[in-house]
Amino acid sequence: MLRFLTAGESHGPELVATVEGAPAGFEIDLARINYDLARRQKGYGRGGRMAIERDEVRVVAGIRFGRTMGSPVTFIVENRDFKNWEKRMSVDPGDRGETKPVTRPRPGHADLAGVLKYNLDDIRDVLERASARETTARVAIGSFAKQFIDPFGISVLGYVVSIGGTEAKVPPEMSIEDLRRVTEDSQVRVADPAAEHGIIAAIDECKKAGDTLGGVVEVIASGLPVGLGSHVQWDRKLDGRIAHALMSLQAVKGVEFGMGFGAARVPGSEPARSNAPTYARFRPPP
Amino acid sequence: MLRFLTAGESHGPELVATVEGAPAGFEIDLARINYDLARRQKGYGRGGRMAIERDEVRVVAGIRFGRTMGSPVTFIVENRDFKNWEKRMSVDPGDRGETKPVTRPRPGHADLAGVLKYNLDDIRDVLERASARETTARVAIGSFAKQFIDPFGISVLGYVVSIGGTEAKVPPEMSIEDLRRVTEDSQVRVADPAAEHGIIAAIDECKKAGDTLGGVVEVIASGLPVGLGSHVQWDRKLDGRIAHALMSLQAVKGVEFGMGFGAARVPGSEPARSNAPTYARFRPPP
Amino acid sequence: MLRFLTAGESHGPELVATVEGAPAGFEIDLARINYDLARRQKGYGRGGRMAIERDEVRVVAGIRFGRTMGSPVTFIVENRDFKNWEKRMSVDPGDRGETKPVTRPRPGHADLAGVLKYNLDDIRDVLERASARETTARVAIGSFAKQFIDPFGISVLGYVVSIGGTEAKVPPEMSIEDLRRVTEDSQVRVADPAAEHGIIAAIDECKKAGDTLGGVVEVIASGLPVGLGSHVQWDRKLDGRIAHALMSLQAVKGVEFGMGFGAARVPGSEPARSNAPTYARFRPPP
Amino acid sequence: MLRFLTAGESHGPELVATVEGAPAGFEIDLARINYDLARRQKGYGRGGRMAIERDEVRVVAGIRFGRTMGSPVTFIVENRDFKNWEKRMSVDPGDRGETKPVTRPRPGHADLAGVLKYNLDDIRDVLERASARETTARVAIGSFAKQFIDPFGISVLGYVVSIGGTEAKVPPEMSIEDLRRVTEDSQVRVADPAAEHGIIAAIDECKKAGDTLGGVVEVIASGLPVGLGSHVQWDRKLDGRIAHALMSLQAVKGVEFGMGFGAARVPGSEPARSNAPTYARFRPPP
Repeated sequence: MLRFLTAGESHGPELVATVEGAPAGFEIDLARINYDLARRQKGYGRGGRMAIERDEVRVVAGIRFGRTMGSPVTFIVENRDFKNWEKRMSVDPGDRGETKPVTRPRPGHADLAGVLKYNLDDIRDVLERASARETTARVAIGSFAKQFIDPFGISVLGYVVSIGGTEAKVPPEMSIEDLRRVTEDSQVRVADPAAEHGIIAAIDECKKAGDTLGGVVEVIASGLPVGLGSHVQWDRKLDGRIAHALMSLQAVKGVEFGMGFGAARVPGSEPARSNAPTYARFRPPP
Repeated sequence: MLRFLTAGESHGPELVATVEGAPAGFEIDLARINYDLARRQKGYGRGGRMAIERDEVRVVAGIRFGRTMGSPVTFIVENRDFKNWEKRMSVDPGDRGETKPVTRPRPGHADLAGVLKYNLDDIRDVLERASARETTARVAIGSFAKQFIDPFGISVLGYVVSIGGTEAKVPPEMSIEDLRRVTEDSQVRVADPAAEHGIIAAIDECKKAGDTLGGVVEVIASGLPVGLGSHVQWDRKLDGRIAHALMSLQAVKGVEFGMGFGAARVPGSEPARSNAPTYARFRPPP
Repeated sequence: MLRFLTAGESHGPELVATVEGAPAGFEIDLARINYDLARRQKGYGRGGRMAIERDEVRVVAGIRFGRTMGSPVTFIVENRDFKNWEKRMSVDPGDRGETKPVTRPRPGHADLAGVLKYNLDDIRDVLERASARETTARVAIGSFAKQFIDPFGISVLGYVVSIGGTEAKVPPEMSIEDLRRVTEDSQVRVADPAAEHGIIAAIDECKKAGDTLGGVVEVIASGLPVGLGSHVQWDRKLDGRIAHALMSLQAVKGVEFGMGFGAARVPGSEPARSNAPTYARFRPPP
Repeated sequence: MLRFLTAGESHGPELVATVEGAPAGFEIDLARINYDLARRQKGYGRGGRMAIERDEVRVVAGIRFGRTMGSPVTFIVENRDFKNWEKRMSVDPGDRGETKPVTRPRPGHADLAGVLKYNLDDIRDVLERASARETTARVAIGSFAKQFIDPFGISVLGYVVSIGGTEAKVPPEMSIEDLRRVTEDSQVRVADPAAEHGIIAAIDECKKAGDTLGGVVEVIASGLPVGLGSHVQWDRKLDGRIAHALMSLQAVKGVEFGMGFGAARVPGSEPARSNAPTYARFRPPP
């Protein structure tokens, strides 16, 4: 079983991901990990930080001659922006006096809870970790993990099905391979060219107003063996564990499986009558 | 920190809940645990099994003279129905031949995955644990745990906000205490008398048709200290852990926090402008 | 991976062992578990309690028709002595007044630490769990677990190599099978008839004086696959995990692997020159 | 609760220690951590590697202006020797061909088990992690952790009580503070000047012969609150957890508490009659 810890502040020198439990002798393609890191940074309308960072892993442990050694693997991702933050993010106590503390908490983040919990006087001590930049380390670990399931024909695919209330349809006859290709090419990761134009316009307009837009992402894992997880004890149930992982992502406020909340509005016999597996097909119109 | 394991089959002799990590010398009111077990069994339109069982805990470890001893606490809940299942659920290998195996998996349960995973020939070996009856042990543990947070003024409240697509409004000015009292008295746990009639009628009709209805439950925890959970590592985030627990309940297909999926349809500035804390107030009309 | 929780007081109604993670469809021989429970109760010179209890498991979860169901398995062992303790170990707060608290802590047990930790006024609240009777549940789980490794030719053997300072030699040419048979037949579990007489006499004398004797047990696991555990992270090292388990047994004050502390007295080249695998062969004379 | 993962090969670029769960706002003295790292490298008669490395932590996460941020702390220790190993320890698959594999396993290490487990053809893939250099990261974490218990007057002291069979006495009237000072000043960490000469001579001679010597270390934790750990469940027992940690150290083959194996040679009434707390006082002469 893999287990991992991540570390690193948004404007600190490095993000650190240590993952343990992988077998030895397995070939790892670092380019694929860097490709997934680049995917994390894409996204139409993303903030300026994304232009500064070009994330790439540096392996400092656990991989030799391109293969896992069985020992813990550590990926380091440097924060290029750190050169502008050396004083403000310094380890040295002597640098404290020169830095103006952040005193205005961002709504919807851990900022306020964090400073109250520990009686801190600088919100930066919280916001540096309560940052979506933290997910960089998780993407590296996830991409590393994906390489181990790849030989078994297991793959995971994520794409966008709505942004700001605009639904993007997935053509019902589209294969998973096509869905992957089409959404990978889309600027907003949708499989619906008509919706894409509307979404881009909405993002442009929203950005001009200094606002943001939410959305819904659908994730499909294919090729899985039957019987992953277990029904026998609450904490081993697969959907519970996946919900835990997804809900731990910054800004995620809801997780559904299959019909999700749509199932609350129809009789129990309904899902059995349908055979459409994905959100866009299942979900009753809002 | 509390940790627990539950065991027990739906038609086995006993359900077993062992919970460990509670401090010693704490007074436990077993009547409150039995009250919560009775609440689990209520519910307008529930199946016949509920009429057979009158769940009550029997304490076989960890409580002496009404107080915790610090040692693990085990609650046993007897299955009264077991007397009708002794042969079919027997431990004795000799009873195997006389029992007809279950061969028809229930859709939406772990039945099919379970028998394929372990190459079993009797679905009963899976369905006995892939059963909502399993939650009895979790309710006992949850009710036990609630007694430890009660002196700190922390309480948890759950009620129904929709069944079968009929929304039950929560009056905006209603206090949490009133909300608890009113929904506790309602046959379908709603705070909306008008909706209650419609919901009861819908359940009656649906039951006649041999079908079932889904719904949405809202849960409010009040009086919590600031800073529960942590933003610093993915698996310690409170919303992720809660999502894990909720999604591990049979039939739960979606979990939302705050606005939930509603946040995907409005600009990011919207929630800050609203101050309504609950589902019924937040959720955009479907 | 198996995980388990045990519960139950020494004079409470039941000891409870719940073990989770076993595969489904595996035949379990309960007689073997009861045999191991009986072995736990043997031992020349044991106290009177052993004569009262005849431990046997009652399965209340996880086994059907002699096979595991994949769900958690719960073994219950009844304390026959409980009928003499119903009032003193009662769950009912009303019985508190009638029972005289224990106020004299046993040296070397958790008694004193336990009552200080939780500010308890009756040491019985601690001693009931700080009791070797607690190991009954662990023996049941261990015996259950052994049945899963048995088909792979893996077995575990324990026997006595010294009591009260009298060393019992293991004949150097003796096979593991013979060692098992001979020590199983010995009243004090030694493979050395000469030492056996001395040990029995020492126990008799010691018992007359109201004292006790310590000893050393050697454990051999045979047939293991190469590479159990792992060198890559501290908590996965096999010897550390075994030491954890052994040191958690009441009265165990030391754990050694191979030469153990003997290795501290000889040059590092010594063990390589020897090829004797067991304590009795390795250990330099005291 | 602190949890941690370490990573890093003996001749890789860096050793990595990530520790999580520390409170925010706590002042950390890095000089003390570096002092403990230097202590790890001392030791009369150590190998040549110790002369090459001068271990110092570089903090890349979790500490700002000298204080913990609450987020995971990562310490990096550079391997200065890496510049001589860049090709042999390269991540790049292209460097594999130029490096001669190690094919001779070191006895008593994980080398043989490791290559058999994963079917590796270069023992270096195992020995790089099955190396006492791995403890560097653990020393950094331990030293970090010690700073949190220091304000409560809790301290941990370790010193040598025998090497190669030569016992070093601890003067019975010596205080813990003096014991710390005296053993810190001793070249072989003993509190017995007479034994020190003999031990140094034995090490010199042994080293000339290309051999090594084992020894026994005594560890004292003082100032602890009553009731650490718990008697209620096997895996929470303090001595078991300490034994796990100690036995996970390379070359440790035995762990004792109090009288340890000495208790196996005397009647149970003996320890109660003695009041000497330490190994050197407790242990019956071998």
